[in-house]
Amino acid sequence: MTTRVPRILALDCMGGDHGPSVIVPGAAIALERHPNLRFELHGNKTAIEAELDRVPHLAKAATIHHTDTVIGMDAKPSQALRRGKGSSMWNAIEAVKAGRADFAVSAGNTGALMVLSMMILRAIPGIDRPALAGQWPTIHRSSIVLDVGANIGATARELADFALMGAAMARAIYGIERPTVGLLNVGSEEIKGVEEVKQAHAWLKQVDLDLDYKGFVEGDQIGQGLVDVVVVEGFAGNIALKTAEGTAKQIATYLKEAMTSSLKTKLGALLAKSGFNVLKHRMDPRRVNGGTFLGLNGIVIKSHGGTDAIGFASAIEVGHGMAARDIVGQLKGDLLAFHSKLDAIEASLSKRDQTKSGTDAKSETNEKSGAAI
Amino acid sequence: MTTRVPRILALDCMGGDHGPSVIVPGAAIALERHPNLRFELHGNKTAIEAELDRVPHLAKAATIHHTDTVIGMDAKPSQALRRGKGSSMWNAIEAVKAGRADFAVSAGNTGALMVLSMMILRAIPGIDRPALAGQWPTIHRSSIVLDVGANIGATARELADFALMGAAMARAIYGIERPTVGLLNVGSEEIKGVEEVKQAHAWLKQVDLDLDYKGFVEGDQIGQGLVDVVVVEGFAGNIALKTAEGTAKQIATYLKEAMTSSLKTKLGALLAKSGFNVLKHRMDPRRVNGGTFLGLNGIVIKSHGGTDAIGFASAIEVGHGMAARDIVGQLKGDLLAFHSKLDAIEASLSKRDQTKSGTDAKSETNEKSGAAI
Repeated sequence: MTTRVPRILALDCMGGDHGPSVIVPGAAIALERHPNLRFELHGNKTAIEAELDRVPHLAKAATIHHTDTVIGMDAKPSQALRRGKGSSMWNAIEAVKAGRADFAVSAGNTGALMVLSMMILRAIPGIDRPALAGQWPTIHRSSIVLDVGANIGATARELADFALMGAAMARAIYGIERPTVGLLNVGSEEIKGVEEVKQAHAWLKQVDLDLDYKGFVEGDQIGQGLVDVVVVEGFAGNIALKTAEGTAKQIATYLKEAMTSSLKTKLGALLAKSGFNVLKHRMDPRRVNGGTFLGLNGIVIKSHGGTDAIGFASAIEVGHGMAARDIVGQLKGDLLAFHSKLDAIEASLSKRDQTKSGTDAKSETNEKSGAAI
Repeated sequence: MTTRVPRILALDCMGGDHGPSVIVPGAAIALERHPNLRFELHGNKTAIEAELDRVPHLAKAATIHHTDTVIGMDAKPSQALRRGKGSSMWNAIEAVKAGRADFAVSAGNTGALMVLSMMILRAIPGIDRPALAGQWPTIHRSSIVLDVGANIGATARELADFALMGAAMARAIYGIERPTVGLLNVGSEEIKGVEEVKQAHAWLKQVDLDLDYKGFVEGDQIGQGLVDVVVVEGFAGNIALKTAEGTAKQIATYLKEAMTSSLKTKLGALLAKSGFNVLKHRMDPRRVNGGTFLGLNGIVIKSHGGTDAIGFASAIEVGHGMAARDIVGQLKGDLLAFHSKLDAIEASLSKRDQTKSGTDAKSETNEKSGAAI
């Protein structure tokens, strides 16, 4: 696969819990990694300059694009659409649209970033609804899970597209040429699984794609890192993500209570401090940072809102990897080819069915493919 | 609410990873709690007798119902249906159906237990698809989550029924008169939520029920014990449950690695042993044990397959609480009353719509109620 060197990135400096005080030093770290990278810094000039003063090497590589308009962390997407024009978030995305920037990064409000990205960049041909792809920390490294909440429900085609798009992202950010992909499902045979999931499964098994399709995975296998990419529709995906976060917090609460339950446990915890630091590091949400909306005409990365400079630099790294691999151009070609293969399969099945019986060929086809698994 | 004292319970002694060696001592613990309880022990006579020899007080309170047929832990539900007749699981459920036993408990295969329970006991009037209700450990106590995988998808009525049924279970096993109930949803406004969830939300807000409806909850709030009962359709519910289990295992792996990373951490962990024991206890899956299929003409409790005698006794306690509260009789009345209220609401909305326009009144009504939230 060809790579190219991203030259310019656009940063929404006002997003996140800490604004420029995290984003500017985050950009400085990214510049150390990629000395030829140039930065468009969108937001309040005074606030950005105050931060740039501390990182003179970045000051030389950056241009400030002033705006007073900021989308609040609790703004509703509808408000962002109505009042977001000219905001730091809007302008950063616009820089991608205009072709000035290779990618944009924001730690702002997810909903606002999603609707603005969709409106400004639009979906690529063949994609109706882009997916929100998140990184999920696993005992190995991390996996990509999509959709974690851009849309409720997904057709079989959309699920299959998610597989393709997630694999492209895994190639770009993990450097794996044939990423492993699994479809999230409920395990036991008594639960039949949804028709869409079954149909997507049949297609992913049948069509030769640039990925290693591993079949169904269950909720408890995500954190085990069983596959590089986990595909699921957005309702269950968002619930799974939130549930995992909640469980981690719950256990952290238990652990804290347990370690402060007596003088002896407190002493033991003190002695084992380096171990707890290792644990803290592995559970650190900054460690894997950078989600994205796959299926758009451009790269926009969503950073955690509460992250620090190191975490923000990780989000920049994700965007850099995706831009270097020209993920948008790749996906356009791959999706077109995939969809024409699917159309061919459907047409041939439909033809076979029409020969057999004249009635309701399409729905019969679907049932059959589902049952054939 | 009236209570009655359960007299007889039927045990599938061959289910679970350990069979009679866990189930018989588990029953002995239950007998100590409820000295007037009597036990039907279904399974291999020789194996059961060998265990009964060690607990003579139980031997006096139990009758053995021999069978050589056993449903394996990995049997498919379809196999259980075809070949399960006369098995220890089947006979235990049959004892409930025949009215000999007040409830049945099995640590056997979930899928088999579900299909056999449905076939033998049948759903109560007004319920098409019973729900699998599980107990979810929270930082407070535990919550009931349903459906965790009996069915894929749920209509708005089914979700509302789950709320009612889950609340009845919470009353029975936690002794809370007005349990708090939440509907699991994806949080942010940008994600609109499914129509069924919205409609169920509108109904639960509108209809006066014997529960405290708290509105939507998100995945990360389950483990916080925000509500006593969490309602969700079975696909997302099963994925949430499995994801929580997986995350707990993942963090346990991290913790183990962290505490064995150096001599110092090992010493610290040794010193803090009592704390780790507290943690282990709180994360112990045996601590909350006992799921059930709500909406059937009888009480069948599913115990974890890998549990020990203490855990199995907890599952018996769940069934005992539900039988004491006559949950089946209660639900029959409550569901009937609830459904007629819903019918009245729908009829009045439909009438209003027909007055306004003659076309497609029903679907318009649904849309409106959804949008009114």
